[in-house]
Amino acid sequence: MTPIMTKPEAAALVVAARIRKNLSWAQIAEELDAPKAWCVAALLGQHPLTAEQAERACALLELDDAVRESLQLQPARGVDPELLSDPTIYRFQEALAVYGPAIKELIHEEFGDGIMSAINFKLDVSRRADPDGDRVVVTFDGKFLDYRW
Amino acid sequence: MTPIMTKPEAAALVVAARIRKNLSWAQIAEELDAPKAWCVAALLGQHPLTAEQAERACALLELDDAVRESLQLQPARGVDPELLSDPTIYRFQEALAVYGPAIKELIHEEFGDGIMSAINFKLDVSRRADPDGDRVVVTFDGKFLDYRW
Amino acid sequence: MTPIMTKPEAAALVVAARIRKNLSWAQIAEELDAPKAWCVAALLGQHPLTAEQAERACALLELDDAVRESLQLQPARGVDPELLSDPTIYRFQEALAVYGPAIKELIHEEFGDGIMSAINFKLDVSRRADPDGDRVVVTFDGKFLDYRW
Amino acid sequence: MTPIMTKPEAAALVVAARIRKNLSWAQIAEELDAPKAWCVAALLGQHPLTAEQAERACALLELDDAVRESLQLQPARGVDPELLSDPTIYRFQEALAVYGPAIKELIHEEFGDGIMSAINFKLDVSRRADPDGDRVVVTFDGKFLDYRW
Amino acid sequence: MTPIMTKPEAAALVVAARIRKNLSWAQIAEELDAPKAWCVAALLGQHPLTAEQAERACALLELDDAVRESLQLQPARGVDPELLSDPTIYRFQEALAVYGPAIKELIHEEFGDGIMSAINFKLDVSRRADPDGDRVVVTFDGKFLDYRW
Amino acid sequence: MTPIMTKPEAAALVVAARIRKNLSWAQIAEELDAPKAWCVAALLGQHPLTAEQAERACALLELDDAVRESLQLQPARGVDPELLSDPTIYRFQEALAVYGPAIKELIHEEFGDGIMSAINFKLDVSRRADPDGDRVVVTFDGKFLDYRW
Amino acid sequence: MTPIMTKPEAAALVVAARIRKNLSWAQIAEELDAPKAWCVAALLGQHPLTAEQAERACALLELDDAVRESLQLQPARGVDPELLSDPTIYRFQEALAVYGPAIKELIHEEFGDGIMSAINFKLDVSRRADPDGDRVVVTFDGKFLDYRW
Amino acid sequence: MTPIMTKPEAAALVVAARIRKNLSWAQIAEELDAPKAWCVAALLGQHPLTAEQAERACALLELDDAVRESLQLQPARGVDPELLSDPTIYRFQEALAVYGPAIKELIHEEFGDGIMSAINFKLDVSRRADPDGDRVVVTFDGKFLDYRW
Amino acid sequence: MTPIMTKPEAAALVVAARIRKNLSWAQIAEELDAPKAWCVAALLGQHPLTAEQAERACALLELDDAVRESLQLQPARGVDPELLSDPTIYRFQEALAVYGPAIKELIHEEFGDGIMSAINFKLDVSRRADPDGDRVVVTFDGKFLDYRW
Amino acid sequence: MTPIMTKPEAAALVVAARIRKNLSWAQIAEELDAPKAWCVAALLGQHPLTAEQAERACALLELDDAVRESLQLQPARGVDPELLSDPTIYRFQEALAVYGPAIKELIHEEFGDGIMSAINFKLDVSRRADPDGDRVVVTFDGKFLDYRW
Repeated sequence: MTPIMTKPEAAALVVAARIRKNLSWAQIAEELDAPKAWCVAALLGQHPLTAEQAERACALLELDDAVRESLQLQPARGVDPELLSDPTIYRFQEALAVYGPAIKELIHEEFGDGIMSAINFKLDVSRRADPDGDRVVVTFDGKFLDYRW
Repeated sequence: MTPIMTKPEAAALVVAARIRKNLSWAQIAEELDAPKAWCVAALLGQHPLTAEQAERACALLELDDAVRESLQLQPARGVDPELLSDPTIYRFQEALAVYGPAIKELIHEEFGDGIMSAINFKLDVSRRADPDGDRVVVTFDGKFLDYRW
Repeated sequence: MTPIMTKPEAAALVVAARIRKNLSWAQIAEELDAPKAWCVAALLGQHPLTAEQAERACALLELDDAVRESLQLQPARGVDPELLSDPTIYRFQEALAVYGPAIKELIHEEFGDGIMSAINFKLDVSRRADPDGDRVVVTFDGKFLDYRW
Repeated sequence: MTPIMTKPEAAALVVAARIRKNLSWAQIAEELDAPKAWCVAALLGQHPLTAEQAERACALLELDDAVRESLQLQPARGVDPELLSDPTIYRFQEALAVYGPAIKELIHEEFGDGIMSAINFKLDVSRRADPDGDRVVVTFDGKFLDYRW
Repeated sequence: MTPIMTKPEAAALVVAARIRKNLSWAQIAEELDAPKAWCVAALLGQHPLTAEQAERACALLELDDAVRESLQLQPARGVDPELLSDPTIYRFQEALAVYGPAIKELIHEEFGDGIMSAINFKLDVSRRADPDGDRVVVTFDGKFLDYRW
Repeated sequence: MTPIMTKPEAAALVVAARIRKNLSWAQIAEELDAPKAWCVAALLGQHPLTAEQAERACALLELDDAVRESLQLQPARGVDPELLSDPTIYRFQEALAVYGPAIKELIHEEFGDGIMSAINFKLDVSRRADPDGDRVVVTFDGKFLDYRW
Repeated sequence: MTPIMTKPEAAALVVAARIRKNLSWAQIAEELDAPKAWCVAALLGQHPLTAEQAERACALLELDDAVRESLQLQPARGVDPELLSDPTIYRFQEALAVYGPAIKELIHEEFGDGIMSAINFKLDVSRRADPDGDRVVVTFDGKFLDYRW
Repeated sequence: MTPIMTKPEAAALVVAARIRKNLSWAQIAEELDAPKAWCVAALLGQHPLTAEQAERACALLELDDAVRESLQLQPARGVDPELLSDPTIYRFQEALAVYGPAIKELIHEEFGDGIMSAINFKLDVSRRADPDGDRVVVTFDGKFLDYRW
Repeated sequence: MTPIMTKPEAAALVVAARIRKNLSWAQIAEELDAPKAWCVAALLGQHPLTAEQAERACALLELDDAVRESLQLQPARGVDPELLSDPTIYRFQEALAVYGPAIKELIHEEFGDGIMSAINFKLDVSRRADPDGDRVVVTFDGKFLDYRW
Repeated sequence: MTPIMTKPEAAALVVAARIRKNLSWAQIAEELDAPKAWCVAALLGQHPLTAEQAERACALLELDDAVRESLQLQPARGVDPELLSDPTIYRFQEALAVYGPAIKELIHEEFGDGIMSAINFKLDVSRRADPDGDRVVVTFDGKFLDYRW
């Protein structure tokens, strides 16, 4: 009996295969017939794939059974804390530090006492053309959950 | 000579006045003729108001000159770290922990090496009706900045 | 205009009044016609009271309008981190450190990939008689939320 | 002489065997004739198994003597701190942050000055059907210990 | 209604009174008819006094009703973290860092899997004469609690 | 030339040998003709053994020369911080948090300004029979050192 | 005898006076006949002013003797850690995280083993016009100190 | 499929090759036809090289394809936190602690509310001869970005 | 009854008096007939003064009884952690980071297994003239204590 | 191409060779014709050796070329933070916590505003005989650097 390959190990192999085979995340998402951002997160280890999704991902990327098994594993979610200071990710941390209390005020004014779910949730990253320089538009879209005893 | 009222002191008075006078953030934003999320953030102390904006905000909220002066101050931006574990704000932290590396991958695939600006940036919080429960939709919209030596 | 009394200030006055008037939390909960654990949490500052609840609580405890106003405020939730090492609270932290991964396994086995909501959630603290010494029974009861894109 | 296999190494092999042999935790608990939550915690490394329990667990899971030896080891208990931010586990942390002081008040009101033991303690995770969505019910059940000099 | 004096405020007044009235902790303990170490801890805010004990302590120390009321309060236990680096206290931290795992081994060898209770617990600080320099002898004496599901 | 086996590696082999050969710490201490608690600490890597002690320990435990060499090494003392949250060790941390300032008061009252040495120091762990449940008695016994310029 | 006004208190008064009297830092520096960046740092509390400089600064800003006395005090240097996450300051932290090891390589290649002094040091902040947007140019200029035993 | 060599592994090989082949960073930069500080940062893992740059760097340093592939990878930027206390790097941290708030004041006075970009940014390290000892001059040069909604 | 003035409050008054009365630490030490470094530390709150020393210090500095009482208090020793990053103090931290393991090797080689006492300890700060620039010479002089069970 | 052996790896081999060949640090220092404390620090990885010094050290200790190469490497200086709690090193940390502000006062009184250099710096560890027990005398000797713009 050997341990199951860890999610980070599987993700490193997915990343290597994607680069070497010159596949875009969009192509992988198309193969999996699933939203692009979900696919990236899942293949980086944050969501379990179904057996069929793991099968198709590994076929496309020519990865072996150990990866396929790992991708179906229930993940322990979260991020290596050092990654949070990478500038591309940090700007979102900074936006939360600057606007977090404003977001809280606006959610409570609009919906009452409660939260945006991060579980019944989807995310989109897109480009918006702009003459002053194109813009990154990231949408957080989660079900409102009110505090209910 | 007395010190200028601090931004948190001014924000506490703004919050008290808004509640006691039963004004919505939308009404305040209308008075300031500025985007709602920007107004909330600014009145909570994250952006300086112009002299005219400070004047109008204090007139509407019946706040005195000390508040008016403070609202125009250049802020030192950021959040009390304890606020980040408030559940309404924490869900955004969690979404970044789960999806941060995926966002990074997608920005680099679409735009190349660079970041979403958190300075040339705007934010929107809105409600999207949904039969399974309405949704909180928060949009981060920042100019793409490429690493350029 | 004066700032609204903070939730911790209001809670300290509630606690003082409860002790000096020799009222149990059960009596206060009965007056508010709400679950006991919810009442304690709310009066300690973790949930907003309705105007009527705040009215009745302050009447019972003979507290003034400043407290009444504060109790209705939308809270920023969370705990003073130093309190987490109080032995009575710490034992729950320890139980999570020892059993957290087991709880995670059991939730995933029973429900699939998702979480127990801490928002659509209720809590109960009760005594169970036992010849070897009575037992503290604390029940966490939250809606299951599955990861759903 | 070789070191004894560590508890985390043994747990990784238990997890791999359970998944590959398609056994539920309930089936394993039945084989060990012990409560399900205890079994999961013990096999993840938080409690020592008796020689007989280790024998039976390894026979069922087809694991070798190195695992069997490790499972009997006295554990150093605790959790990898990064796991505490996994959303499924974090919700319990959040519930403690929001309700910890209320739990403390209620224990002291009911029992006097003391704590719920986390040693003379048992835990249960169950499902409660609910038309608004089934619920995760986690019960912490520990002997009350009063401060006694 | 005013808040109850906090335990640290009461402790500061106890300490001031003890020094100015030139009373030893032994004299105070005798008045309270309780173990000396318990008395010191209680008067510093770590245990609640009974109404009678608080009465007698305040009479002896000539402290007022606000202190008397505070001393009976249920404490939130723990220490200001900065105090832990005071050299007199730090040596105990260091002894735990050096000998903690050895203590754990010896408890498990002698008693099996379990802990020394810090609740059903008493402590003694005494002097032992020694020709090479007298010795501080601190005894931790707690009931053994075995892990019992 | 190869590096000397580290103290933790040697300790892991000592622990494995002790369990497999079914030796008690008392038996090992007898062989080394040294106090039991000292022996456990030393073999876990907190004190250097003399050449003769290392020789005898390795003979008894059937460990090789690499272990023997390592056991004589001057240690860098301290504990893996994660171990401090193991419940058996944590109770001592908690006792220090609750009683540390009281211990400080009592040492200063009895001895004046100074500390208990953690270097000229010995420790004992013993069992005291008690009809209400046997007790763990841990004695810290260190020379008093007064602040002396 | 009263304590000397703290440096942060004096700085808050300097800042208030500068804004209300509508003086630029350049005007203040001219009055003090000292480099602008040095003046800002000194008036914010990081360098002691001479008696004459403190005199002239307080005359210009119409501040009283308590400020004048404080400005001459030897400072304990450093920054409120929360300020380091202000975006304007954080970008310099980020640049050090990204380029720190490269700066180290280049200093060692050019000068050998040693450091840039932060004591025999000056700093300049200036604007450089650029058709693609003007640039902030910050120069750190410190004496090279080689490791010398 | 094997994972791509990590950036730190590639950097260690670049550093080894540079030393053994006795090449200066200036020589490497010349080969890459790029600014010296950029080259050092990129080869230490903070910027991706183009395929051609990676080709030329590996040819000059006689490094193999695994390094060449790694150097083109999109980096996760940042620094091992332990490196920040290396004295050569720490002096820059200290300069920010002492002068950060002054830099912030001067940027806002000169440019208004905004920041120096760390993305549209370049850095230079040079020597300035000085009779009192040559000086290290480090220039941070970034585009000004104003807060713009 | 009022609390005793805290040591930091007393120290702030000592510092103010010393500056306003233009007294050197040497003059104060002479008045107290005690080593200069000891006097500074004691008056800053790290050692208790005798009644007579407190009397003479307060007479010289024209400070009142509240200060005199505070100076005799048994201190809780330690430093505000923010002070440790003041450059004048930090250089000693850095020297320990660079040379700490070397100091440990040299103590063990010269004395065997043990430590330099920080209790039976004295410290001296002096100037040594040097044509290349005078030198700060700080001597740590503590009794060797060997590990002795 | 292989990476250069890291400094900690080289130090572990130096330590092993020194012990097995029974050489004192004094003997090694004599061979290198350099101050003893410098040699220990350098061989533990805190200073680069010259080619000749590395040659002679490796000849004496019979270490191979990989060590010799590593010893000449420019170090990244600093200490594993866990080592700072080793009691022999910790006492110096404690002395800084207790006496750091006093050292700062005395340096400023004697020299004015500035620091002791930790770069133009030397250190000595010696024994001073004393009838009450020999003493460890550690001297920090660094050039005074005044703040000079």
